[in-house]
Amino acid sequence: MFARVDHIGVAVEDLDAAIALYEQTLGMELVHRETVTEQGVEAVLLDVGENHVELLAPLGPDTPVGKYLAKKGPGIHHVAYQTTDIEQTLSALKAAGIRLIDETPRIGIRGSKVAFVHPGAVGSVLTEVVEPAH
Amino acid sequence: MFARVDHIGVAVEDLDAAIALYEQTLGMELVHRETVTEQGVEAVLLDVGENHVELLAPLGPDTPVGKYLAKKGPGIHHVAYQTTDIEQTLSALKAAGIRLIDETPRIGIRGSKVAFVHPGAVGSVLTEVVEPAH
Repeated sequence: MFARVDHIGVAVEDLDAAIALYEQTLGMELVHRETVTEQGVEAVLLDVGENHVELLAPLGPDTPVGKYLAKKGPGIHHVAYQTTDIEQTLSALKAAGIRLIDETPRIGIRGSKVAFVHPGAVGSVLTEVVEPAH
Repeated sequence: MFARVDHIGVAVEDLDAAIALYEQTLGMELVHRETVTEQGVEAVLLDVGENHVELLAPLGPDTPVGKYLAKKGPGIHHVAYQTTDIEQTLSALKAAGIRLIDETPRIGIRGSKVAFVHPGAVGSVLTEVVEPAH
């Protein structure tokens, strides 16, 4: 069902400080930076081999990541698994009775197709499915 | 510094239920199961391509994962990055002023060498460095 971990999503308060940490100290290459207005975040992707760290800074306090930071503070926000066919993956999850936040894929960072699984269905782990852009 | 994400560590209350979810519903192959008495956990590794999910169930309430579950509930516990030379990686992190929980590696699951970085040094993300057994 999944080819690899696509990324770890990390909620941060200070994006520039987080970039400095991951890029300079942890040696990960910054490969993409994008403001995703619909999701209320500025997001940065750094390479870790074929996986990524996705740093997420909220565009304001009333965004999902802004509320997350206010409630839980910075830290690991979600994990994303990579698939080559997101529609098929979502169908299989639905058929298994797994509750989805996104019943159909939407466009995520770098033109990928993404969908979130409800954390209540997967042990309180916010889980994302990603089909990268081809 | 890091070749890939080694694993996502997930704290769970019911290990058998979590295995059923990850193995049967999410299609990940269970490749290892080990009781790590020193760390107070029963741990299970499942393959996701070259990455893993590590399910962690506490051996009792007074263990680190037991206390984590009591305080925060189940969910993502840590992220681990893979290196080919953990001593060199720890030296580089120390030289950069990063606070470590483990100044020297200890033996982790499947005979790997592991060390934890202090979450206070990396944006409240409990971060592990892993050198797999050769």
